[in-house]
Amino acid sequence: MSTRPPDAVRVRRQPTRGHYDRASVDAALDGGGLLAHVAFVEARQPFCIPMLYARVADRLYIHGSAKSRALRTLGEGAPACVTVTAVDALVLARSAFEHSANYRSVMLLGAFEPVTEAERLPALEAFTDKLVPGRWREVRAPNAKELRATSILALAIDAASVKIRRGPPSDDDSPDAALDVWAGVVPIVTAYGEPEPSPGLREGVKLDESVRRLSRAHS
Amino acid sequence: MSTRPPDAVRVRRQPTRGHYDRASVDAALDGGGLLAHVAFVEARQPFCIPMLYARVADRLYIHGSAKSRALRTLGEGAPACVTVTAVDALVLARSAFEHSANYRSVMLLGAFEPVTEAERLPALEAFTDKLVPGRWREVRAPNAKELRATSILALAIDAASVKIRRGPPSDDDSPDAALDVWAGVVPIVTAYGEPEPSPGLREGVKLDESVRRLSRAHS
Repeated sequence: MSTRPPDAVRVRRQPTRGHYDRASVDAALDGGGLLAHVAFVEARQPFCIPMLYARVADRLYIHGSAKSRALRTLGEGAPACVTVTAVDALVLARSAFEHSANYRSVMLLGAFEPVTEAERLPALEAFTDKLVPGRWREVRAPNAKELRATSILALAIDAASVKIRRGPPSDDDSPDAALDVWAGVVPIVTAYGEPEPSPGLREGVKLDESVRRLSRAHS
Repeated sequence: MSTRPPDAVRVRRQPTRGHYDRASVDAALDGGGLLAHVAFVEARQPFCIPMLYARVADRLYIHGSAKSRALRTLGEGAPACVTVTAVDALVLARSAFEHSANYRSVMLLGAFEPVTEAERLPALEAFTDKLVPGRWREVRAPNAKELRATSILALAIDAASVKIRRGPPSDDDSPDAALDVWAGVVPIVTAYGEPEPSPGLREGVKLDESVRRLSRAHS
């Protein structure tokens, strides 16, 4: 990826918050939570739809029902924008104006294409293991009927930008710092709660190792 | 809002997950976290940008620098889509295919317009108090220069749909339920961490009441 970003993805406001190197892009995609918001256009109306996603090497995958209108439009190569955002903290200043949030957001532009036959199982493995690392090996693999019912699309990671805000509020050096108002950041923390067995879980089936690891990792 | 949704926002896949009544829309907007993803089109390329937002009655507000390209495009009435999504739980099934997430997502279609002079301060109050309820009264109000530098846009809440997935995995009644694989949901919980004072916080300034309430409410 060039150090001079393509015009379409260049961060114009607060340009010092923009990053274009592949390591920053991958980190924002892999650490951005479960959801991407995927935008596309139909008859001049933009739509923005939340989707689970996964990255494998240079490709970002989405999937869904083969009957989904969004997947069909995207699979035909409609121009798309994929945005993944994590909010890390509230940024509280002395003035209303300087209130903000710390966040990491990555935006990819391009066009999706249907995956090759050889990509299908690795992509599905990536989706499952993104939800819960190690889960794929524990569960029943997709059968032929399920594979036919699933549309999987890939976007090459190419035109991409990351925008990050970190750190304290911006008014430490302003006259407002003399005010009797607290300023700082309040971290936003995401964690897993106690696993809740399905009502139909067969008696005697224990928590799988991947799920136990998940709870330990985040508690 | 009519009970028969406009075609553009109708939930087609899994239609039983779709809701169109105003109470569901407001609940999804107010309980959806801090961020909206706002999509618009420029030269046939969709862009999807994360923004802080606030709702007051029938209007959804976004704001940003008066110099922002996105705010300018949106303020000129470009067709827009605003999506707010909260992820509530991982849904773990016996098969890879039935893995999913529980979520609440609301999508609004329409066009933004610049707010009226009378709307500006109430909208800024709503932004501040959405970050931290009660914060507006504690901080310095915007001055004339800050107000000039801020573009505030409003979208009338009209064409809207909510999509919600709740509950256990879908394979309790399938032959897969006989497998020796754990199934259920793992809640995803968001909480506030310990407030971190700004490096430049004047000695002796105590945590404001709004910030103290925030930590108590979520710990």
